[in-house]
Formats: sequence, C-alpha cells, structure tokens
Amino acid sequence: MTKINDVISVRDFNVDTIEKILNHANKMHEALNAKKPLENAKGRLMATLFFEPSTRTRYSFETAIKRLGGDTWGFSSTEGTSVKKGESFIDTIRMADQYVDIIVVRHPREGAARLAAKVAEVPVINGGDGGNQHPTQTLLDLFTIKHYKNDISKQHVALIGDLKHGRTTRSLFYALSMYGAEITLVSPPGLQMSPELVEEVKEQFDVTPNMATELDPNQIDDPDVFYVIRIQVERFADPLEAKRLEAAYRITPELLSRFSKNLIVMHPLPRVNEIDPAVDALPQAVYFKQAGFGVPVRMALIDLLLNKK
Amino acid sequence: MTKINDVISVRDFNVDTIEKILNHANKMHEALNAKKPLENAKGRLMATLFFEPSTRTRYSFETAIKRLGGDTWGFSSTEGTSVKKGESFIDTIRMADQYVDIIVVRHPREGAARLAAKVAEVPVINGGDGGNQHPTQTLLDLFTIKHYKNDISKQHVALIGDLKHGRTTRSLFYALSMYGAEITLVSPPGLQMSPELVEEVKEQFDVTPNMATELDPNQIDDPDVFYVIRIQVERFADPLEAKRLEAAYRITPELLSRFSKNLIVMHPLPRVNEIDPAVDALPQAVYFKQAGFGVPVRMALIDLLLNKK
Amino acid sequence: MTKINDVISVRDFNVDTIEKILNHANKMHEALNAKKPLENAKGRLMATLFFEPSTRTRYSFETAIKRLGGDTWGFSSTEGTSVKKGESFIDTIRMADQYVDIIVVRHPREGAARLAAKVAEVPVINGGDGGNQHPTQTLLDLFTIKHYKNDISKQHVALIGDLKHGRTTRSLFYALSMYGAEITLVSPPGLQMSPELVEEVKEQFDVTPNMATELDPNQIDDPDVFYVIRIQVERFADPLEAKRLEAAYRITPELLSRFSKNLIVMHPLPRVNEIDPAVDALPQAVYFKQAGFGVPVRMALIDLLLNKK
Repeated sequence: MTKINDVISVRDFNVDTIEKILNHANKMHEALNAKKPLENAKGRLMATLFFEPSTRTRYSFETAIKRLGGDTWGFSSTEGTSVKKGESFIDTIRMADQYVDIIVVRHPREGAARLAAKVAEVPVINGGDGGNQHPTQTLLDLFTIKHYKNDISKQHVALIGDLKHGRTTRSLFYALSMYGAEITLVSPPGLQMSPELVEEVKEQFDVTPNMATELDPNQIDDPDVFYVIRIQVERFADPLEAKRLEAAYRITPELLSRFSKNLIVMHPLPRVNEIDPAVDALPQAVYFKQAGFGVPVRMALIDLLLNKK
Repeated sequence: MTKINDVISVRDFNVDTIEKILNHANKMHEALNAKKPLENAKGRLMATLFFEPSTRTRYSFETAIKRLGGDTWGFSSTEGTSVKKGESFIDTIRMADQYVDIIVVRHPREGAARLAAKVAEVPVINGGDGGNQHPTQTLLDLFTIKHYKNDISKQHVALIGDLKHGRTTRSLFYALSMYGAEITLVSPPGLQMSPELVEEVKEQFDVTPNMATELDPNQIDDPDVFYVIRIQVERFADPLEAKRLEAAYRITPELLSRFSKNLIVMHPLPRVNEIDPAVDALPQAVYFKQAGFGVPVRMALIDLLLNKK
Repeated sequence: MTKINDVISVRDFNVDTIEKILNHANKMHEALNAKKPLENAKGRLMATLFFEPSTRTRYSFETAIKRLGGDTWGFSSTEGTSVKKGESFIDTIRMADQYVDIIVVRHPREGAARLAAKVAEVPVINGGDGGNQHPTQTLLDLFTIKHYKNDISKQHVALIGDLKHGRTTRSLFYALSMYGAEITLVSPPGLQMSPELVEEVKEQFDVTPNMATELDPNQIDDPDVFYVIRIQVERFADPLEAKRLEAAYRITPELLSRFSKNLIVMHPLPRVNEIDPAVDALPQAVYFKQAGFGVPVRMALIDLLLNKK
C-alpha cells in the first residue's frame, strides 16, 4: 500500500489505497458523530485556490480542515487576486507553497492540479480540473455506496443521464470498474459514455458495462444504486424530444416504485429538475447525506497527507 | 421559560426568554472584557448564508462564533455560488445542514429564515429577512438599553425617523411594548409607524405610544433613549420640504442640549447624515458601543443554541 | 527602545526598533520550522480591511494571525460592504474597533492608515496606503537581507527598475539608509528615484547612493543584493526604446553569471517579465522565500502589538 503524497486523480490509486482512504474516512465520520473536537490539523493551514467557483466542494473542504482543528484561506474566483494582475499559475502555487501546509486547487484547465503538485513542496489535492478529474467527488461517491451497501464490488450501479459530458460519472465509472462492480450506463442516444473509456475499462479491468437508454426495470436488472446527473435538455434542437427526455429521465416516486425498495438514489448536486423534490422524503434519497460525506472523506485525505500516514 | 431552538423572530419570545438571553449576553460581555479565550464553541462550525449583503451583521456573527472558539464559512452575496446555478434555497440550506452545527441566514424574502428552520435539523438564526424580522438587532438594541439604563420596562424610548419603512424600529417597538416601556414615535407625516402594528401592540400589551412629529422637548417628555434611523429624504418630491426634514431630524449637540444629559442616543448604523459627527464625542453617543454589543448578544444566542441551554 | 503601538510607516522606527522586530521575526521563523502550534494570539481577532485588493499581503497577514492561533475576518474589496452604502472610512474603522483586537488596513489614499490609528483604540497595521507607505513589505525585505547576509549595514544593495514610481523601493531605500548600507540606484533616465528623497536621506543619514543606468558590473560594484521591480515599458512612447529597456533590465542566468555567485535576487512579487523563470532554479533566486518571510515578520508585529511587548 503506497503512501499518498498528493490527490490528483483516482487513477493514481489502486483499490487497496482507496479502501484505506474510505476506512480512514469512516473513522472521521464516527468522530464527527461523537461531536468530539479533533486536533489532527491543529496549527496547520490549507490554501483553497479556486480558479473557478464551486460552492459545495469549497465549503466541504473548509469544513473538513476546520473540523480537524486547522484553518484555511483562499479565493473562490480570480477576481481581485494577483492572477488578474498577470501572475502566472505557477507563481500563485509557489506563493501558497510558502504560506501553508496543504493546497487545494480547482482550475478550468485539465492538468492544472498535476502541474501544481509538481511545483509545490506541500501536498496538493485536486478540487476538480476542467472536464478531467475530480477525485474527492469520486471518493465520496464510493464512500456513500460503501456506507449504505458495504461491499462496493458486489453492487450493481446504474449511471444515469448525460454520460458523455459528465465528469463525475466518467470518474466514478472508472473507479467502479477497478472494484469489478456491475455497471449499467443509462443515457439517451448521443449522450453516451465515451467508447474509448468503455474500451479502456474493458481491457484494464475486464469489466463490460450494460447499456440502457431508458429508466426501465427491463433494461436495468435489479440495481442497487442509481447515480443521477443532469441532462442538459437545452442541447436538443427538437423541443418535443427535449421534453420527452426530461420526463423520461426524471426520478419520481412513481418511477422508484418500479424498482427495489433497497435502491439508493445518489446525485452529485446541485440538482435542478432531474429529481422530483417529492423523492427527498423517501428512504431511497441519500443525495444530501452523500454531500455530507464529502466532509469525512476530505478530512481523511487531509489527515493522511498532513500527517504522512 | 422555554428552551430556544431557533431565533427567527423576537415575537417567538416572551420577556422571560429575552431576559434570559440578555443576562447570558452580559456574561459574555464580561468574558470579553476579561480577554479570556472561550471554548464554548470549540470544534463547532457556523454557516453564514447571506443572500443579501450586510457588513455589520455578518462581521459581528463571525466575531461571535470565533470569540467562542468556533469557526465559520459562508457567502456574503450569491455571486459565484450554486444559487447562481439554479440551486433552490431549500437545497442550499440542506447542504449547509449536512456540514455545520448552526446556520445564520439573511435573505431578501420575508419568511426565508422560518422556512430554513423548518428544513434544517441544526439551529437557524435569522440574520434579517426582507422588511420582516431582524431579531438579533432587536436583542442587541434591548441589551444596550439594559446596559445603560437597567430596567427596560421603566424607560421612555423615542423612536425617531422613517418609522414607516424602518424594520429595526418596527421590531424594537414591538419588543419595548412587551416590556411595557413608555414609547414615543417621532416621524414626519407620511412616514409614521404602521397603524396596524400600533393597534396590535395596544391590544396585546395594553401599550399606547405617544406620537410626535418634531424633535422637540415639548413633544417628547423627558426621554431616556433616542433611537434614530435615517429618513430617506430622496423620497420627497418637494426639495424644500426634504431639506427642512433633514435639518429637523438631524441629531446635533445643540439639539441634545435641549434634553436631559442622561439621554442616550442609539442608531443601528451605518449612519449617513442623520447624526452630526460632532455628537460622537458626547457621552450621550452610544451607537458605536451598541454595535459592539452585537458580539456578546450573538455569542449568547450561539451558545444557548449549540449547547441547548 | 520604544514600545510599538501601531505600524504605520517604517519612518516611525529607528534601527534599534527594527532590529527588535527582525529578531522577534526570527524566533517566529524558527517556531514555524519546528511546526509547533503557537497560541500567542489564541482567542484574538484581527480585522483585515482591504479597501484595495492585494492578494499576497492579505494572505500572509491571514496566515500570520492563524499561525499564532488567532483568527481574522474582513474584506478584500469594498464591494458588498457598508462602505458602498456611504459609510465613512472612520465609521468603518470604529466598527472594527468594537469587534477585534487588531486592525490591518490597506487603502488607496495616502494617510488612511495613520487616520485609522488615530480613530481606533486597538493597534493598527498599515497594509499599504496609496503610493505612500507599506512598512510590513519593507520589514520583510530587511528580514530577507538579514537572513541571507546577516549584517544589513554592511551590504551593498542595488535597487533596480522604475524607482520613480516604486513604493517598495522608496521605502526600502529609506530604511537601508538608516542602516548606513551601500546603495546603488539602477534605473533608466526618467524613472529615477525622487531627488527630494535622495537629498533627504543624504542630510538625515549622511548616505549618498551610487547611481547607475545599466545592469552592468562596471556600474554596480560587487553588489550583495539585487532588489528588482518592474519597469512599466508601456509608459514609453518609443516601442524600440521600450523593447531595449525590457531586455536590458531583465534578470537572466546570463546576466547573473557576470556577478558574484553570492548575490541574492529579491523581488516583491508578483513578477511578470522582469525575471526570467530560468532564474528560479538558481541559488541566487530568493524571491519566493522572501514572500514566505512575510509570514514570520507579520507574526512578530502582531505578537508585539497584541501582547504589548
């Protein structure tokens, strides 16, 4: 099991390392429930350098370091920063590297986080870089599945929505394949998961996902998890087709009644119309808890990185 | 005496509960003066969700939680947040509910804070919702009167300025009536306190306020407190009348010399022209101290809510 | 040796006081290296009131107070603050004065920080006021020279670039003169250090700087320190002259090979084109370390002010 130096992509980890992180996150989850103040990061500082905005990711990172007894500063957009004065990305990273013990970076450009990790002496966590990687999201998704369903490798997970453009689903698809889970990819024609990625996963992990086009029990056989992302219906030229898709991919109590009661419904949030608010009160709805799990997962990563465990 | 679960409106409290809060605030005030670091909120987090800006309220809440050894995160406007991406108010509250131990919400819409309290499992404090309620301002106003004058019920308080549109004066008027204090409402014709509210207070607390139109000792009989808010003179079509009003309602050393030296002058701040800066140096001027009292009052509320006292 | 009440201008200090600050900063530097959490500012709050943006200064102040176990709040621009509602500068300072233990103020107007210090009861640190003073930058510059070269008075420092408009170089020039260091002012014609300041320094400290126009060993005799700032080449009407100057004043490995290997290159950052990134890897390049020294220097000032040492 390798020591973790940075968190750039879930592809840098194997299942053993991921399990180590998830188990550590579980300890953090229990500590949070016990409401006992922690001091794992006492006196330590984290920079949150968000070159593009992301409310939920930023707040859960802030929560995580503060729950560990540490503190943070940073920016949520480049307005009013040296970046606007023409400072290079690398110099901004170097500045933070002088001031803090750990850096979280979110950037619209692919590869930005890995570049930051190369430049900085302190550990770097990727808070999302462009359409590329968002490893802490994937880890909290895995944590959620494990929390509710235990053994990830034995689950049947349906990834649902615009799988062509969804970053979180691409990354989760890869991670679930590492585990050897059963996967069904549910998307309308034209918005399917990239065939290159499906091919790669097949070769690397000998996993072949099922393909489906409708949220239908005949197409998705006894799923344990629905992982839902938005379909941007405004992409469709035909307004009738857009309307039909929006309705067909919307999660409602009626739709869920056609599947097992043990199914859990996940979503990276924020959701707009793709999940009926009437679902919120059902036991299947775990998406708010899922968002909450971002805190113990990020606490675990920060603790592992700061204290070189 | 009821346990406090949320702080939404001062109308939810009775005099006993308010006195309990003010007494607890006084202990906080003494602790601050002793400069002894507190740990009542150690390891605890507060979200400050400000859907509309408010410098003073936000900073004094931040000061309060940090003085208690806790920490906070949040936004001061919805720029760059998920709200801009179309996330619903309720989902934003639910997100924060997963991350923190207490939520402060300020929102331009009436009723937003009560809705938040319904949705969230953690306690919610109303930091001001539209023209409706701003209970922590009212509590710090009461604290200030009690601090300088002791028994609130025995004071004569003159509320001065645009009482038609003033949220803080509406709320303070209600609270002072609960105490049975003597009240004089001083405002120009057209900017008077809502007759419905005056009627309601009469019926509920058997309190009839005096009415005045000028800052004149003949109209305001031996007041203990001046509570001043701005008149938006730009509302007046007649520029001569606007000028006259601005002068007539401006607090100056000359004006104060016509009243008792024991009078205190309060203002919710920021002030613009309605108090002459020459007043700042007089012993009557307590408005900066009043702003400062926002900290112990908010500390008391946070402590009572977090530790379920 | 005088007790420090505020930090407004380096001109308020003598060499003894500066040495006291630098020595205290060195203790802070050692404590940071030992990674031992400090509690010198436990339970204490700092307001960072930045009426104009400054990434590096703000982050290093935030880092400093948090490294000392304290906390901070504030704004990085006046957007969304009471200042926008017409609140006066003085009232904003008075508000903060009620809430916190120490105030850092940065303002585009000269004299703003000194005015703040007059109004506030708590200590005030100038984070830069207009083209006037930026004392914490000067102190960290001196700390850097002392760290690498020991006795400041025995060094030969070349100040390089647009010395007419550079605030940091004006202030450092004054401070180095107090120490009696050897100084060479290197700037193109038209961008020279103000003759009034040169005259003042001559009279007060009996120091006469050398003058140079090119980065040439024949003009700069055995320097210990290069302190580089940007030349705004866009000021030049003649594009050929602008190009020539940019090249002539650019620090490159080739240029440095013509000077002693013990030379250190400093820069207040952010740098744009005036230092070739190829210099970053050379032992002469200390500008990132220099930025990092902003933390122990500001920690020292905060500690001295808060704890009245």
